[in-house]
Amino acid sequence: MTEDIRKYAHEKKELCEKNDAISDELYGKYGVNRGLRDINGKGVLTGLTTISKMVAFKDVDGVQTPCDGELWYRGYNVQNLVAKTGSGFGFEKTAYLLIFGEMPTDEEAKEFADILGECRCLPTNFTRDVIMKAPGKDIMNSMTRSILTLASYDPTVVSGTLEDSLYQCIMLIARFPMLAAYAYHAYNHYENDESMYIHRPNPALSTAENLLLMLRPDKQFTHLEAKVLDVALMLHMEHGGGNNSTFTTRVVTSSGSDTYSTIAAAMSSLKGPKHGGANIKVMEMMENIRENVSDTSDYNAVYDYLGKILAGEAFDHKGLIYGMGHAVYSLSDPRERIFRGFVEKLAAEKHREDDMKLYEFVEDAAPKLIAQKRRIMKGVSPNVDFYSGFVY
Amino acid sequence: MTEDIRKYAHEKKELCEKNDAISDELYGKYGVNRGLRDINGKGVLTGLTTISKMVAFKDVDGVQTPCDGELWYRGYNVQNLVAKTGSGFGFEKTAYLLIFGEMPTDEEAKEFADILGECRCLPTNFTRDVIMKAPGKDIMNSMTRSILTLASYDPTVVSGTLEDSLYQCIMLIARFPMLAAYAYHAYNHYENDESMYIHRPNPALSTAENLLLMLRPDKQFTHLEAKVLDVALMLHMEHGGGNNSTFTTRVVTSSGSDTYSTIAAAMSSLKGPKHGGANIKVMEMMENIRENVSDTSDYNAVYDYLGKILAGEAFDHKGLIYGMGHAVYSLSDPRERIFRGFVEKLAAEKHREDDMKLYEFVEDAAPKLIAQKRRIMKGVSPNVDFYSGFVY
Repeated sequence: MTEDIRKYAHEKKELCEKNDAISDELYGKYGVNRGLRDINGKGVLTGLTTISKMVAFKDVDGVQTPCDGELWYRGYNVQNLVAKTGSGFGFEKTAYLLIFGEMPTDEEAKEFADILGECRCLPTNFTRDVIMKAPGKDIMNSMTRSILTLASYDPTVVSGTLEDSLYQCIMLIARFPMLAAYAYHAYNHYENDESMYIHRPNPALSTAENLLLMLRPDKQFTHLEAKVLDVALMLHMEHGGGNNSTFTTRVVTSSGSDTYSTIAAAMSSLKGPKHGGANIKVMEMMENIRENVSDTSDYNAVYDYLGKILAGEAFDHKGLIYGMGHAVYSLSDPRERIFRGFVEKLAAEKHREDDMKLYEFVEDAAPKLIAQKRRIMKGVSPNVDFYSGFVY
Repeated sequence: MTEDIRKYAHEKKELCEKNDAISDELYGKYGVNRGLRDINGKGVLTGLTTISKMVAFKDVDGVQTPCDGELWYRGYNVQNLVAKTGSGFGFEKTAYLLIFGEMPTDEEAKEFADILGECRCLPTNFTRDVIMKAPGKDIMNSMTRSILTLASYDPTVVSGTLEDSLYQCIMLIARFPMLAAYAYHAYNHYENDESMYIHRPNPALSTAENLLLMLRPDKQFTHLEAKVLDVALMLHMEHGGGNNSTFTTRVVTSSGSDTYSTIAAAMSSLKGPKHGGANIKVMEMMENIRENVSDTSDYNAVYDYLGKILAGEAFDHKGLIYGMGHAVYSLSDPRERIFRGFVEKLAAEKHREDDMKLYEFVEDAAPKLIAQKRRIMKGVSPNVDFYSGFVY
């Protein structure tokens, strides 16, 4: 197995060199300093690459005007990427696009998915000796420990060549679903006294399908469930160098640290409640609304209670409605827009229309309440975390 | 034990609130944005606090002129701090000063050292089940995994209050030497087939003394060894928010992540060869010089070989003489200056005068060679990593 992927990494190295080089000219143009100095209080500039692009404002007759958000990966609008990967394996194709900088042909996509399938296994006894050790509710902590432990098994860890870094990244991408699913089952067994299910992944299936297979006691899932998860993975893959976890990787790699340590540091950032942990807050808030509003099919009752949350009089008393607003996007978060359509279908399949209705109420009421309270000129709209809590 | 330190953290909370508050005025004055936006490509500014201060230039008749470097902790010159803590426990006193913002009285210093001594133990079977698992040469990786695993044992991990954060930090400070020393012995046993020594720390001894006690098979060390290590710890404790690992903590905490994850991320940065790993490079370079220069007591031979290293013709062919120069300091790195005096005494005690002579040759020759090759106006001098490799 190791030889196959080493060979693959060797072959693909040139693609990265071609598509990810940053010209010297740009360093000068944007005043980016190399080495340690660039974070030494001298200011950090993002946007040197075109790996992703976010659009939140458009020029209308010379005036910057808030617009529906757009997210582009390597020159492809994410909306189109999602629409075109009908057959599944959207995550794999998008990963190829982001890593190598070019849209894969069908053959290349198949080869990449096969490589991931082949790598989707762990060292002997790893699940027993590492994942099941000191299990806890904090799955992100468990995954981070697993990532660091995997470094002990990898002789290429300190080499730092592009080829070896590709090898390490592909291995990690393949193994992530196992680290997550097994950590969940270990927690559920040792802390919640439930049965523990450790299913082996199926190399013929996609990342999304394998995640569901490993999570479900009976390995069963519907086509729509896999599709929604595949889309969710695509929407969360890349969001520029300005977000906290990506920025953490920039900081840590600049000290010359290795891939495993860098991803561990990024995971430590991503788990924060103001970052990746935001969708947990949305779920807790929705639960709190259900507990405190006797009839959640009554729009006005929901509206009034949201007003109390925003005033800091209810829920966590922080005066925040979670899942709303974004640092960059204005009129809408494109990821939320795309995701919403799939969530609606899923709610119908699961007969969760009542829950969906409550989410729609909040989606409608929250921006109105926030606009009343604060003068945010660029507009407030639900972000990608709003519906993701519901889906998971 | 837990109750004692909880009580201590509760009592000391107000001290931190008093000494570490950042006035709202400063945010405006320096244009520091709160929340996620401050790293969103808008530039990061350090220097908002006065916890540490570095001096590299002085105003001479209105002209900024390179000067001998100075490092200040909370308004105390580190040189004076080192000179005044003659009785040992310099690390503990300095930690108190940095954490609480005030120089401890003798009584407060004793209480703090006692608390650390009390906390210097690990959960049952932790050494066997965590530290001895998947041991490797990468001690920083092992320590990072240990830190993350300790989070599973701490019910306060997500609270985020100042009191609980103090508790977590004090526990980590106390346990760090154990995580490091035991990881080394596990590696030495399982990878190098040497004997494994797991000594329990002595609560009456200092952090530096305990580190030596746990590292040495026979638990023996001289007073001078403990003193040099104590000074080394003091010199490395704080260096402003601009260094890579400290900056990593700022980035990760701003996502709301917990203490253990944040320190794990910082460790992932610190281990990089361009950061904390630099002293390993110095040691490798010195070893390489010994192998390639037949008579290292011949200054000219050493000078010539260093010239080859700088030209990229010898050692790692990167054209760098390690342990020289600093991003901020100019004429001298105060930490190197202070450390050097202790290293000299230690070399005499250990009868390593020949090695010391070689270091002195490099210290003299390298700046001359670098000045010839590059036009660095602020001056190049040995940094703190230069002698630390020799000592350890």
